[in-house]
Amino acid sequence: MTGHSGAIGIFDSGMGGLTVFARIAERLPEESVIYLGDTARVPYGTKSAETVLRYARACADVLLARGIKLLVAACNTASACAVPALEQSLGVPVIGVIEPGARAAVQRTRTGHIGVIGTMATVSSGAYPAAITALMPDAQVVGQACPLFVPLAEEGWTEGDVPTLVARRYLEGLRGAGIDTLVLGCTHYPLLKSVIGPVIGQSVALVDSAEETAVTVEEVLTRLGLRAPAGSQARREFLVSDGPENFARVGKRFLGGDLDCVEWIDF
Amino acid sequence: MTGHSGAIGIFDSGMGGLTVFARIAERLPEESVIYLGDTARVPYGTKSAETVLRYARACADVLLARGIKLLVAACNTASACAVPALEQSLGVPVIGVIEPGARAAVQRTRTGHIGVIGTMATVSSGAYPAAITALMPDAQVVGQACPLFVPLAEEGWTEGDVPTLVARRYLEGLRGAGIDTLVLGCTHYPLLKSVIGPVIGQSVALVDSAEETAVTVEEVLTRLGLRAPAGSQARREFLVSDGPENFARVGKRFLGGDLDCVEWIDF
Repeated sequence: MTGHSGAIGIFDSGMGGLTVFARIAERLPEESVIYLGDTARVPYGTKSAETVLRYARACADVLLARGIKLLVAACNTASACAVPALEQSLGVPVIGVIEPGARAAVQRTRTGHIGVIGTMATVSSGAYPAAITALMPDAQVVGQACPLFVPLAEEGWTEGDVPTLVARRYLEGLRGAGIDTLVLGCTHYPLLKSVIGPVIGQSVALVDSAEETAVTVEEVLTRLGLRAPAGSQARREFLVSDGPENFARVGKRFLGGDLDCVEWIDF
Repeated sequence: MTGHSGAIGIFDSGMGGLTVFARIAERLPEESVIYLGDTARVPYGTKSAETVLRYARACADVLLARGIKLLVAACNTASACAVPALEQSLGVPVIGVIEPGARAAVQRTRTGHIGVIGTMATVSSGAYPAAITALMPDAQVVGQACPLFVPLAEEGWTEGDVPTLVARRYLEGLRGAGIDTLVLGCTHYPLLKSVIGPVIGQSVALVDSAEETAVTVEEVLTRLGLRAPAGSQARREFLVSDGPENFARVGKRFLGGDLDCVEWIDF
């Protein structure tokens, strides 16, 4: 199979990456996309970097076997822990969400004081501070892990007293740190925007990397001559390692529309 | 290796089963115990019954290879989804936490109105209502899944406003149902007792299955002549599939003391 007849492969630990899928599918309507949610091993964010890398390789192998031309790690944890290693070892371009997110933050900030929230694994990895200071060496980056945000988003408790109290507790330190930009460093967090925004303060810009990741995918495909020919028939496929019905049901919250045809695969 | 030279094997999706380990180790101080926490695949409670069974079999195989004489599924989800199948296929006795929990609830209730809280998988399985009505055919059993309780317990947020509000929301329906007994159908939930108790009302007895499971283990070993000889040198071993340092750190909350010697294994 030659490069440009293949699809874009996207993987995530579960359904958070659907926010990235949506931006890529909108921006590149003629490209076929295969989304793989590793729902049997979800979450990645509480696990060690070694285990996350192992799972990310397994996801990449599944997608490569389906002839993808480019791989997107649509998961901050996997991007932080696995993209550098995958870039070295795979035969296709690999794009994570950390560098696009860092670029978006640097474009937004005026003071250079940037906050980053994410899973324990993402925050511990130091990947965001590294990516941000590579672009803006004098940036001040403060990180905060928010482990309860993912279960809250998956439970659908995205507004009201419980998520507000949880957000206040996690963001207390960042509120005193004088940031003007906050990176939502986990693909689930955009679902909690209406809580995070008021708690952190309306003067702080919230950045999520989905849109910027889609821009990067377009740039890379174009540069490498891998764009699908005009008029191509685009396919959208969803693969999961567990619970296709649940994925289709909860996935609606992320896509705002039905997901038909979710396939269960064992790997 | 003959039966009674072996250890008791205990597995759980993570560290919740340490509450069961503690009761078994206290009650049977002369027995060696190997605890396996499947921290690379945690949680089980949000996954399908098929996937939970697959993971439980993998845990059982690891412990059988170490010569255990009896297997305890110290996880309500694994007990609900996998114990019947494991009982059929393993060559050692298998004890889950559901039947001991059901027995404890039936001993406690005066009205026969029993509530059960647990993970989505445990509640969906219907295992508790089945086990309770097998012992008390006219019991009325009401179930409620509480998905945020596990992440709250693992985050250490076990008292104060956030867990209280979460408990109020989950337990609202049960408060109106006239129960006099509530089964804590997940090994993490005893950590939230000081929140669950006041919310459900002090007249409702809270039942956890750890103590009753230890009683069952003792009975089965005695009946089958598998007790360790008096004066045996008891070993305590902890195996995890991910993050031994984190397991040792968070495990203290469950055991109230240090866990030395946590071994990482790949399976």
